[in-house]
Amino acid sequence: MQEDLIEKLIEQFRTLPGVGYKTAQRYAFSIIEGKEERAKKFANAIIEAKEKIGFCKECGNFTDKEICSICQSRNRKIICVVTEPKDIISMEKVKSYNGVYHVLFGTISPLEHRGPNDIKIRELLKRVQEENVEEVIMATNPDVEGDATAMYIAKLLKPLGIKVTRLAQGVAMGSDLEYADEVTLSKALEDRKQI
Amino acid sequence: MQEDLIEKLIEQFRTLPGVGYKTAQRYAFSIIEGKEERAKKFANAIIEAKEKIGFCKECGNFTDKEICSICQSRNRKIICVVTEPKDIISMEKVKSYNGVYHVLFGTISPLEHRGPNDIKIRELLKRVQEENVEEVIMATNPDVEGDATAMYIAKLLKPLGIKVTRLAQGVAMGSDLEYADEVTLSKALEDRKQI
Repeated sequence: MQEDLIEKLIEQFRTLPGVGYKTAQRYAFSIIEGKEERAKKFANAIIEAKEKIGFCKECGNFTDKEICSICQSRNRKIICVVTEPKDIISMEKVKSYNGVYHVLFGTISPLEHRGPNDIKIRELLKRVQEENVEEVIMATNPDVEGDATAMYIAKLLKPLGIKVTRLAQGVAMGSDLEYADEVTLSKALEDRKQI
Repeated sequence: MQEDLIEKLIEQFRTLPGVGYKTAQRYAFSIIEGKEERAKKFANAIIEAKEKIGFCKECGNFTDKEICSICQSRNRKIICVVTEPKDIISMEKVKSYNGVYHVLFGTISPLEHRGPNDIKIRELLKRVQEENVEEVIMATNPDVEGDATAMYIAKLLKPLGIKVTRLAQGVAMGSDLEYADEVTLSKALEDRKQI
């Protein structure tokens, strides 16, 4: 016979991705056993983030302003095209990249009935033409849909005289060849570089 | 260059037990990408749980009332003694138990300078004497401190003519003997039952 408010909190934690009952319970107890100030801070961060964070009008990145801080401060001649806003965070770990981004919000996927007009390709073309972009880096996922989407966009951009590149595909750094799958290995062999 | 409000939310999720940066980030995005109503419900559940849930005056269980629902409705002649409020939730999975609980809020631990007076043993004795209790079940953890605490309390209760029992220790049901540790196995052998 668990008290209702605890159950309610556990239920909320269970809505998080990959969280089952036991983990949710552990989280809930950590809130209940913690300080009141911490609970307030936590709740505020949730409310604030949801209320104030939207998408950048320019690139589609998460932001609490109209134009995100990346679009405001970086080299707009290079655009890195990603599938989801969260991909930007992964790319940003590469400290040396100084260009801007463009979020497609999906990939072309005939299976899921998503065509070129259902993702932000038109917006990308507009940006490329208006802003005199020099290079577009396709950073869609290295899978069938990501590859197809990259190819589709490359075909649209090349006639405009823009350099279109794709993230290199091959064996991951620091990984073990023993565990690399054959598709990755064959791609790595195909794209081998002279040293 | 991640937006501040997202970072703030990620930081809050990182305060949960066992949550690292990647997981916290995943949780944060699920909030940001989710509906506003869900975020509000989530935040409310946190605030409400923290504000309204305290400890039952009788047994120490989590409750949003003065006396928890278990103390209000069950057989008070049997008390199951546990270490933490959350242990009650584990015990409650045993649907057949109809007694009440007593939370010690710790174990006797010379290493951590916790003596008998630092945990709720006095309160247990008072309850036992005032309420005509028939049986006290020691459900402290099956480790050195839990065993020592159970023994200590048993010694205090036996002179009062109260039946003191301890949860059986042995191999876990549905487990594999191959993976049972030797301490558990030797205990299981020692306490073997005629069938």
